[in-house]
Amino acid sequence: MNENEKKVIEEIIINTVKKLLVERDCPNRVVLGISNKHMHLTQEDIETLFGKGHTLTNLKDLKQPGQYAAKETVKVIGPKGSFDKVRILGPARPESQIEISLTDARTIGVDAPIHESGKLEGTPGIILEGPCGRIELKKGVMVALRHIHMPLDIAEKLNIKDKDYVSVETEGIRKTIFCNVLARVSEKFDYEMHLDTDEANAAGLNNNDYLKIIPNR
Amino acid sequence: MNENEKKVIEEIIINTVKKLLVERDCPNRVVLGISNKHMHLTQEDIETLFGKGHTLTNLKDLKQPGQYAAKETVKVIGPKGSFDKVRILGPARPESQIEISLTDARTIGVDAPIHESGKLEGTPGIILEGPCGRIELKKGVMVALRHIHMPLDIAEKLNIKDKDYVSVETEGIRKTIFCNVLARVSEKFDYEMHLDTDEANAAGLNNNDYLKIIPNR
Repeated sequence: MNENEKKVIEEIIINTVKKLLVERDCPNRVVLGISNKHMHLTQEDIETLFGKGHTLTNLKDLKQPGQYAAKETVKVIGPKGSFDKVRILGPARPESQIEISLTDARTIGVDAPIHESGKLEGTPGIILEGPCGRIELKKGVMVALRHIHMPLDIAEKLNIKDKDYVSVETEGIRKTIFCNVLARVSEKFDYEMHLDTDEANAAGLNNNDYLKIIPNR
Repeated sequence: MNENEKKVIEEIIINTVKKLLVERDCPNRVVLGISNKHMHLTQEDIETLFGKGHTLTNLKDLKQPGQYAAKETVKVIGPKGSFDKVRILGPARPESQIEISLTDARTIGVDAPIHESGKLEGTPGIILEGPCGRIELKKGVMVALRHIHMPLDIAEKLNIKDKDYVSVETEGIRKTIFCNVLARVSEKFDYEMHLDTDEANAAGLNNNDYLKIIPNR
């Protein structure tokens, strides 16, 4: 093993142990995952866009157990513009849902409301185009409400219940306190906060930054 | 005068008087101006891009006295992408400066730092293209530090000095507290807070919303 390889291993150990210590000692420190525009699709919509019998290919596992970024991307066409390659997140879901930022919404000219994921009532539709077909969705475009995926043991330590709102504080030149952050508590979740690109950029944050949960203001 | 005209006039009066009352009674309420990507140019750069002797044309006055959006736009070309029509704000300045959001910076592949306006040291360059020429700027691309333009009388009422930092609180589903907001105090300023599009979208804000100044956290 050469010196460079030793250094790489040392760095991996330092980062991994730091992470474990933060999670053990500071349950109110949550790691950030930044959501770029993406979509969840029904199996039926996947087959319309990619061909009969097509199933998604796992490109990369996400932090939430069982969730993955698929190899497949879709063109999203709005009244004023389009995005060529929007990533599908797998697995397939009971309803198709497109999550974009308010910046994205303005770019393609769609009036997307800020909604809790899965609540599609009152959301506008959009056109999707894949290699094998085109779909005019009647609803499903939203800007996701900022939220934290929280496992049960952390929620108990912090005395937080499912659907509670908390605030989250960042550090740095763009220090920001995000209020009205939805806590979603489940034994199925890995501990992670989700912000969209507007929110992360507004606070100058990067993926895997640690943020601090405080009482909602 | 018909009923519709009466209604329009009534609405103008209500909005104007409300604004005056807010400004009189609540000096800590500041109106929001959202900065889209834009640039300030030297007279020399204006002439390189638009032709010898060219001067900017005022399209629309801005809230800050003497400042205006010019009719002229410029193509901004980065390593990974470009923006076709970026607005110039007039009048001409001693140094050329391009202000974009972190979302914009990622789109065109430029590593723009968060800087106070006018502080160009350490900022990256970019290529500008106008109808008559092209410039390779060596520096000047930045993400503007959020700030408040504050006239003297308001600053005195709030006990804020030039270059102080304050926090600013918003309302609504994306309620946010922006910390480290630079107060710029001058008799030349009209009272106005500037956020970029990432920051405004992160908090779900619109132009002319009123925000509340609180002590810096």
